[in-house]
Amino acid sequence: MKMPSDRTPLLAESSPHVSDQSEQRAEEAEDAALYNTALPDAPRSSRLRELALFSWAVLATAAVIVLAVVLQHRNATTSPSSLSSAAASKPSTGKRNLVFMVSDGMGPASLSLTRSFRQLVDHLPIDDTLTLDRHFWGTSRTRSSSSLVTDSAAGATAFSCGRKSYNGAISMLPDFSPCGTVLEAAKRAGYHTGLVVTTDITDATPACFASHVLLREQEDEIALQEIGEGVLGRTVDLMLGGGRCHFLPNTSAGSCRMDDVDVTKIAQEKHGWTYAHDRPGFDALALGKNVSLPMLGLFAYADVPFEIDRRNMADVYPSLSEMAITALTALEEATKDSDKGFFLMIEGSRIDHAGHINDPGAQVREVLEYDKAFKAVLDFLDKSGTEGILVATSDHETGGLATAWQAPDELPVYNWHPQILAKANASSEHLARLLHRRIATTPEPIESLRKWIHSELVVKHLGITNAQETEINALASRPLHAMTSFARLISQRARVGWSTHGHSAVDVNVYCSGGDGAEKIRGNVENTQIGEFLRGYLGVDVDGVTKELREGMVRVSQADGARVTGGFDYESMHPAEWMVEG
Amino acid sequence: MKMPSDRTPLLAESSPHVSDQSEQRAEEAEDAALYNTALPDAPRSSRLRELALFSWAVLATAAVIVLAVVLQHRNATTSPSSLSSAAASKPSTGKRNLVFMVSDGMGPASLSLTRSFRQLVDHLPIDDTLTLDRHFWGTSRTRSSSSLVTDSAAGATAFSCGRKSYNGAISMLPDFSPCGTVLEAAKRAGYHTGLVVTTDITDATPACFASHVLLREQEDEIALQEIGEGVLGRTVDLMLGGGRCHFLPNTSAGSCRMDDVDVTKIAQEKHGWTYAHDRPGFDALALGKNVSLPMLGLFAYADVPFEIDRRNMADVYPSLSEMAITALTALEEATKDSDKGFFLMIEGSRIDHAGHINDPGAQVREVLEYDKAFKAVLDFLDKSGTEGILVATSDHETGGLATAWQAPDELPVYNWHPQILAKANASSEHLARLLHRRIATTPEPIESLRKWIHSELVVKHLGITNAQETEINALASRPLHAMTSFARLISQRARVGWSTHGHSAVDVNVYCSGGDGAEKIRGNVENTQIGEFLRGYLGVDVDGVTKELREGMVRVSQADGARVTGGFDYESMHPAEWMVEG
Repeated sequence: MKMPSDRTPLLAESSPHVSDQSEQRAEEAEDAALYNTALPDAPRSSRLRELALFSWAVLATAAVIVLAVVLQHRNATTSPSSLSSAAASKPSTGKRNLVFMVSDGMGPASLSLTRSFRQLVDHLPIDDTLTLDRHFWGTSRTRSSSSLVTDSAAGATAFSCGRKSYNGAISMLPDFSPCGTVLEAAKRAGYHTGLVVTTDITDATPACFASHVLLREQEDEIALQEIGEGVLGRTVDLMLGGGRCHFLPNTSAGSCRMDDVDVTKIAQEKHGWTYAHDRPGFDALALGKNVSLPMLGLFAYADVPFEIDRRNMADVYPSLSEMAITALTALEEATKDSDKGFFLMIEGSRIDHAGHINDPGAQVREVLEYDKAFKAVLDFLDKSGTEGILVATSDHETGGLATAWQAPDELPVYNWHPQILAKANASSEHLARLLHRRIATTPEPIESLRKWIHSELVVKHLGITNAQETEINALASRPLHAMTSFARLISQRARVGWSTHGHSAVDVNVYCSGGDGAEKIRGNVENTQIGEFLRGYLGVDVDGVTKELREGMVRVSQADGARVTGGFDYESMHPAEWMVEG
Repeated sequence: MKMPSDRTPLLAESSPHVSDQSEQRAEEAEDAALYNTALPDAPRSSRLRELALFSWAVLATAAVIVLAVVLQHRNATTSPSSLSSAAASKPSTGKRNLVFMVSDGMGPASLSLTRSFRQLVDHLPIDDTLTLDRHFWGTSRTRSSSSLVTDSAAGATAFSCGRKSYNGAISMLPDFSPCGTVLEAAKRAGYHTGLVVTTDITDATPACFASHVLLREQEDEIALQEIGEGVLGRTVDLMLGGGRCHFLPNTSAGSCRMDDVDVTKIAQEKHGWTYAHDRPGFDALALGKNVSLPMLGLFAYADVPFEIDRRNMADVYPSLSEMAITALTALEEATKDSDKGFFLMIEGSRIDHAGHINDPGAQVREVLEYDKAFKAVLDFLDKSGTEGILVATSDHETGGLATAWQAPDELPVYNWHPQILAKANASSEHLARLLHRRIATTPEPIESLRKWIHSELVVKHLGITNAQETEINALASRPLHAMTSFARLISQRARVGWSTHGHSAVDVNVYCSGGDGAEKIRGNVENTQIGEFLRGYLGVDVDGVTKELREGMVRVSQADGARVTGGFDYESMHPAEWMVEG
């Protein structure tokens, strides 16, 4: 399939509409001019010829009026279906907001799973739908340049750069050259920019929008580039999420850096970031009404807990929807006097983690929280005076999730059981942590541990009262596998199937609020077309950023090559010439 | 979500369009009348008043012409995006053809599976797509009234009647009353009707369009109703597919009926069907150019072989696309002088069977043949002089297919391997049949059988040269499980995962050619909305048929109660009052 060129001005798509309006205005002016000037001169002579003339003129004028009304009506009713009422009704000043949401690891089966779960727990009719369902737009093909099954790095590079790359690439191309991102180009063009996640802010998805490294594991370097130490300087105005450990020097508690660089300090002192690192710090932001940009909010050392657990720790961690609302409000305030709006990426990061663990109880709550954040963005766009669009999709599916599971040596059952998921009140991740803590702190005979696991974890937190002895034994004797073992207890009873703890190649869903040009990504598209659409919607020059990056990264690598490549042996990966030159 | 009532005339949706056209015609007539009659009378007097009048009239007339041209242009360019060029350009005579395709058991993962397989075997670029992909329209929620996981009967009842029912229902509602189908209502309204399948024509999907029984297993009764023995008489004009065994008396070879009724005889002698039962009979139809309706073509005792096997038996069995083209051509010819078109249901029936067996090698060829039939229908609609639409969807997913599979005690692999599917040249079903035949005809030591299985089946037909001893032993020692064992050999090596041999609850894809009102089923819809759309597109009275059925089935059951209920103990299922009365 031929992709639109980087240089195709996607905004040109709107010109037929604009032209229609101009035509209409011209017709109306002509109509008014005719009517007002001709009417006073109309003769009332009794002569036949004049009467005929008059009749003709009146009839023709009447026809003009009728036609103008029809035309007016046609204009009002035949706007392309891609234009939502919100988008269509905004004044087209050229100022635009773009919110891009990523449901990391959410495949198509997660939707029927979550929808039926919600119908059960909220006592809703069987045709009740999620907000996402009502904005279903199409599907996206996800393969990377190196594999039929992508990872999140190649997946996010398709969105950020609009290009296919290899698994592990953080906005780097298969030839190991960097590619400019929509966020960077937006910043260059005068937009404000933000990233909101529930995992490490240095994880692959957010990293792809504001950094360039050969491998996603180079998170120490990603943290530095994200705050402004890359060749482009600072391109992000707001970051909210987890992953504080990558910003703390390895001389301090909770750090996961290899070096003693204090990234929070460089951020604040050199690049002017405001920094918050806990719930009181988040609360002080007043849901975005009291934010001083650039704003760095890192509210967990690594991941924000799964929503199923966070609900009980809301005094420690903000939710995805709270962070999303904060970002939207802060960015709208910051751009209120600007002729440019903002670009904001919001990721439901841990739908993917629930998939990796194969934990359906955690996943449905992650998807519901994502759906809530999605609705918050829609509400924001509806209320905002600025034209805007919401595009949401996944990078890939995780887990090979199936809403059906056949037990070995049994016939298939044509059902699955959301009530099992409803009974679980903690994630498998959380239960494994409780188990590990118990083992570390309470020396006891294995029989005592088994009893504790059964009563305190399996019955109390999973609501499972029919656990087999072999299942409890496995938890007690192989605690390092406890996380997936707990998940299996739930999945098998709920009759939910998984094929892998990794990713799969199924097409993922695309959601959209509708808006200018959104027909381009309707139907089944390549993930890179989503990336092309994002840059096109903002009308920003990504190629210019790519050029700047290529020149800059050579410069930087001459000065500080080791830091740029993060110690990664890029030569073994046949680096592109430009990098060898560096 | 509020469903449109059965009584909502969905065609009313098209009225703005029709009304626009009428308005336009009225305007044009008015314009012409004004211009032609007024112009000869126009005075050429030198008097100022007359000049002013004349100027006014000419200007107004000019404005009328300009506006009419603009309006004409607007009509030509602003047809809603749901209207394909084909649909939009057809003369709107009210005559319409509706082709409804069902990809039984095809879930979203089957698409990425088949697309990547085709890219590999046909040496296509990595963004090459199926014809289906290019007509992606949305997704459908599939649950039945009795379960989160539907079967094909409840799934097809949602399409045929536009109503949710219980698993097993053949166009019967949860209260065990019959519901009229779009095919029956179309026939009543003067349309021609057809059913094309690759499984038994009495199987759940086709059965739901032309019969009414409490349980799908009542295939003896379904066969009778399909040829015209139901209370509505004959409602189908053409049936092509398999399942001949249900039409032959149990006194003849190859019958699977419980009784000695010769349905082919009743069909021909009482209801006037032309009957074909083999490949020469199919070839005599000249791909539809030589068909005498009503036409009953039953080309296999049960299923038409999987396409991967049928390719090598093309002298015995026609393909799905050949049967589809035959049906389209015959129905178009039959309706050429009618003011009504036709309703045709075409099912890729055995995508589902490949899912049940968990055989990815068979499935990709089934999906490719379905894609070919889909393209044949599109080409037909493009060429046809009659307005028409193609709507295609699945009833459910089968197998819990995942395009990734993690081997036990291994780390996940971020890839799957279509080349393994490419090497398989026979279905697991066919190989199991060869194995069973060998065992039945060749007494030999188990070691000899193992060697034969390895060389003649696994290496020769699956291209697998690294089969484990345990795998070959399992095939030799448990031949009744051979079908799924062969499939597992392929799936595991290809790293394709399955969660069940039954169905799953994931939303399925909807495809559409575009056409009047098709926006109604864009996005994520309930499967019953597809059914509502079908009847609405044809503008047929399904409720009238329902009434006739209820009255008729009471009458028939008074006369011949046992036959109507097919011996099924419906009382144990709490039948609705109306049936108890019967």
